[in-house]
Amino acid sequence: MNVLIVFAHPESKSLNGSLKALAVSVLSQQGHTVQVSALYQMNWKAIADERDFQYLQGTERFSYVRESKQAFTDHTQSPDIEAEQAKLLWADAVIFQFPMWWFSMPAILKGWFERVYAYGLAYGVGQHEGTRWGDRYGEGKFMGRRAMLSITVGGRLPHYTERGVNGAMEDLLFPIQHGMLWYPGMDVLPPFVVYQADRLTPEQYDVVAHDYQQRLEHLFDKSPIPYRSQNGGHYDEQQVLKPEFGANQSGLRLHLLQSGEAADNRPVLISQHFYSGKRAGYENWNCWNG
Amino acid sequence: MNVLIVFAHPESKSLNGSLKALAVSVLSQQGHTVQVSALYQMNWKAIADERDFQYLQGTERFSYVRESKQAFTDHTQSPDIEAEQAKLLWADAVIFQFPMWWFSMPAILKGWFERVYAYGLAYGVGQHEGTRWGDRYGEGKFMGRRAMLSITVGGRLPHYTERGVNGAMEDLLFPIQHGMLWYPGMDVLPPFVVYQADRLTPEQYDVVAHDYQQRLEHLFDKSPIPYRSQNGGHYDEQQVLKPEFGANQSGLRLHLLQSGEAADNRPVLISQHFYSGKRAGYENWNCWNG
Repeated sequence: MNVLIVFAHPESKSLNGSLKALAVSVLSQQGHTVQVSALYQMNWKAIADERDFQYLQGTERFSYVRESKQAFTDHTQSPDIEAEQAKLLWADAVIFQFPMWWFSMPAILKGWFERVYAYGLAYGVGQHEGTRWGDRYGEGKFMGRRAMLSITVGGRLPHYTERGVNGAMEDLLFPIQHGMLWYPGMDVLPPFVVYQADRLTPEQYDVVAHDYQQRLEHLFDKSPIPYRSQNGGHYDEQQVLKPEFGANQSGLRLHLLQSGEAADNRPVLISQHFYSGKRAGYENWNCWNG
Repeated sequence: MNVLIVFAHPESKSLNGSLKALAVSVLSQQGHTVQVSALYQMNWKAIADERDFQYLQGTERFSYVRESKQAFTDHTQSPDIEAEQAKLLWADAVIFQFPMWWFSMPAILKGWFERVYAYGLAYGVGQHEGTRWGDRYGEGKFMGRRAMLSITVGGRLPHYTERGVNGAMEDLLFPIQHGMLWYPGMDVLPPFVVYQADRLTPEQYDVVAHDYQQRLEHLFDKSPIPYRSQNGGHYDEQQVLKPEFGANQSGLRLHLLQSGEAADNRPVLISQHFYSGKRAGYENWNCWNG
């Protein structure tokens, strides 16, 4: 299989750098082919602006969406964007390795999504008319690919539980995992999270490395987070969850298949890419670091 | 009062640009003093890296946190960072005007937070030992200031309700509003959100402008979102919400004061900055665009 690691940390000799190197090593030993996009080290341009396009369609007002749509179609995007898109389309799995800064990804990685996720590639895909809102949330051009966040956090685990002062990690990551990975069709694996990352002893690092190696070895067979698919029958024409689903749930968990519910009718993908062909059942996926 | 508007859109002639200009006009007419940080137009450096510091303490491995702590103390940060910090400390209220891209803020604004929010200014403030986890979530150097997001969204309102396919807007914004604004002590007003922003007719814009003007006129007297304060007695020594709070709630709403609960004991601020001196009571704050 092909694996892309998108690495966003300014220091290669950091914990993030060590985890990135470990992933390259473990995955290569398993026979996978690995590419790394080291965003800081390649001086990745973080800001989405008019320089991302070789020609501008608009004359009066600059619209990133409009320019992106045209340039993606015409192959006139900036070469650095096209190169990253090619890596994404090449990959069977994508790992995002980054430190959580202010409860989200570093700006340089956010800019990677804004620029690489072109109109026609990651959004604006499929039919948009009437009651059809495109191929998204479980469908789209990245369907059949797997994605996983591997992140480091300064704080302690209890602070990131549901009743912890920071809010639950699964909720904090929802805009990324659901909104940026599941949206264009990737199956999202539970994240690998290292807490208290700035005070890890060598002995603790060994434990972390062991756990991460195990996660990497199951990159292609672990069950993904069971997000509901948009077009699988659970949402109504207004894209609102039908009343018969999500009993006794509230908040962002509503958008996960519940134990005992029937799976939705997400289409099965037939392509050159790995895909199990069945929707993951409910799993005790809150045990993220187990 | 002093108001800082942080504006993050590449096109001044955009809806975001219009709302920014409207805010400058309305607030000035009310007698407030307004500064604007137009991040794209000032070529704001989005990436947090070693160039942010005039001297580097570390020799072997670059640590942004360590360098930030030292440079903030020594006044050896990059001048562009110091200038933005001065604006923040000058402001009684801060408005963030941006388009929601991929369920979060543009990378250029994320990089503003990463660089301007120095150690010792926005985090690492107050006592950190034993069971005390610093001055954060309702306390800190920005206490007494107000913050408000003014954002534009391509999608429709029903998609952003609790059962809508994107997840509830209040939950999607939690990492920003709670994690980046409430964290260093700012009171966070309900956001002003414009949906279907890319297909607004002139008539619809007039309605939006009218609504926004009303919000701006109440910038200093509208009740903020009633997040719980970290050190106000509702969280235990592990920073976990005590069992007697948040009855019948789950998810991120647990971190809001509930109707009928006693207010927490957030300290009252006495300073030159505006502050009502009392905790906001529960308000029907889900009606964000009302």
